[in-house]
Amino acid sequence: MEHIEAIKEFGGWLNRYRHDSATCHCSMTFSVYLPPQAQTEKVPAIYWLSGLTCTDDNFRVKAGAQRYAAELGLALVIPDTSPRGLDVPDVPERYDLGQGAGFYINATQAPWSQHYQMYDYITRELPALVEAELPLIPGRRSISGHSMGGHGALICALKEPGVYRSVSAFAPICHPMACGWGQGCFKAYLGHDREIWAAYDAARLIEAGAAATPLLIDQGTADEFLAGQLHPMSLERVCTARDFPLTLRWQEGYDHSYHFIATFIGEHLTWHAKALREA
Amino acid sequence: MEHIEAIKEFGGWLNRYRHDSATCHCSMTFSVYLPPQAQTEKVPAIYWLSGLTCTDDNFRVKAGAQRYAAELGLALVIPDTSPRGLDVPDVPERYDLGQGAGFYINATQAPWSQHYQMYDYITRELPALVEAELPLIPGRRSISGHSMGGHGALICALKEPGVYRSVSAFAPICHPMACGWGQGCFKAYLGHDREIWAAYDAARLIEAGAAATPLLIDQGTADEFLAGQLHPMSLERVCTARDFPLTLRWQEGYDHSYHFIATFIGEHLTWHAKALREA
Repeated sequence: MEHIEAIKEFGGWLNRYRHDSATCHCSMTFSVYLPPQAQTEKVPAIYWLSGLTCTDDNFRVKAGAQRYAAELGLALVIPDTSPRGLDVPDVPERYDLGQGAGFYINATQAPWSQHYQMYDYITRELPALVEAELPLIPGRRSISGHSMGGHGALICALKEPGVYRSVSAFAPICHPMACGWGQGCFKAYLGHDREIWAAYDAARLIEAGAAATPLLIDQGTADEFLAGQLHPMSLERVCTARDFPLTLRWQEGYDHSYHFIATFIGEHLTWHAKALREA
Repeated sequence: MEHIEAIKEFGGWLNRYRHDSATCHCSMTFSVYLPPQAQTEKVPAIYWLSGLTCTDDNFRVKAGAQRYAAELGLALVIPDTSPRGLDVPDVPERYDLGQGAGFYINATQAPWSQHYQMYDYITRELPALVEAELPLIPGRRSISGHSMGGHGALICALKEPGVYRSVSAFAPICHPMACGWGQGCFKAYLGHDREIWAAYDAARLIEAGAAATPLLIDQGTADEFLAGQLHPMSLERVCTARDFPLTLRWQEGYDHSYHFIATFIGEHLTWHAKALREA
């Protein structure tokens, strides 16, 4: 992988890398914040998955997470939200399909399937790469994300039992099969069989018996996408039915923006750090 | 003034306003973060002046300042960097002249002088407006900024003795008469008489006897604009000669970006809060 940027922040280093992805068949860019502790020892990693329209840049610029990561001794691994490039299929007039909208799934349908393999990229290729090349403790990972990336964090943790110590999300798409954003992408990337969609739907995965991982969700009550797209109540219902360890916090007056994330990211990282420190 | 946006953050409110500026003869947009304390009492204000190319958006999104402002009970008043609009002169192909590059001075030359009155806007019209309309303690102000906005913060404090309790800056343009950015704007906005330029040059103002205000500056050693544009050593020299209360901190390895600001903004706000709390 090519090291294309290094910016000092909170005593650590915010790095950006580019590599040829064997999974997505294109050049992929990602960022990693290494806290000061990583200069002398290996550290655990939080994977952050961003939402629709984002690249690796949004979280590193807007969330204010590096301060907490420096205090807690955590690396932040921040991938892109889809494959990219002129050769990669896209629908430029839509923000919710194609580039910037990978939905963290492995596409099976043409023309998407060659490049849109984000699930394997996030859960396999990227961790193997960064754990080989950077001072990260192998296998010591937690995962979090926002909106489409909150959905991504949930399905990665639910489908890979034992791989993530903890999972959290901000305003996640909890039941993509039941909302327009999810249906649009699932139909394009996976075809029309809704039982195949269910393998990438957090509410359905929990309903079907996914192994328990501690799960923290913050949801703003003034979120403009709450009613139409997010469906946290569907997730809460299946968690309650199965005694799944969900902590769903309703945050009064908060919207869907990074200002909401900035407000609570410190609490999320502190919560993940506790899970990551346990033997 | 028109209240055009309100976003909850750290228990307070990040607001955006638009008003018809009598000083700049155009519609101006600015942001104010009101901490939770402002719901029950009036609070002191920090004015933040941004650098070239910025609007009020950059600082509120990238600096991570709202967390500290909420803890310390400080309002953040975040103006734009120039007049704006189709009727306002601009040089679209240049980032360092015209809109986005007001340099916080009162222009005297055509075609700039009708709208580019940012010094009076920042020191007179805006404070009078926000102190009349928002829960701010009248006259209880400090000021800070970055790059061109660091220059702006310095000259506002130096030219208005007693108005700001404290002044700080990140990588400020300390001696604009001696750098390309400053010379380009001063020539356009003020004409060719360099003695008029000196009234907006921090190093020259201190040399000429400006009253002392506590001054904190952070400067990264890896700042890509340090050698060509910023000249902190010129400022340090005149401060030393006059025993002016400057604290200049060289921050090893830090660049010119908002990641540098984010790292140290908490220390700046804490320092300002101490000055603002004194009777």
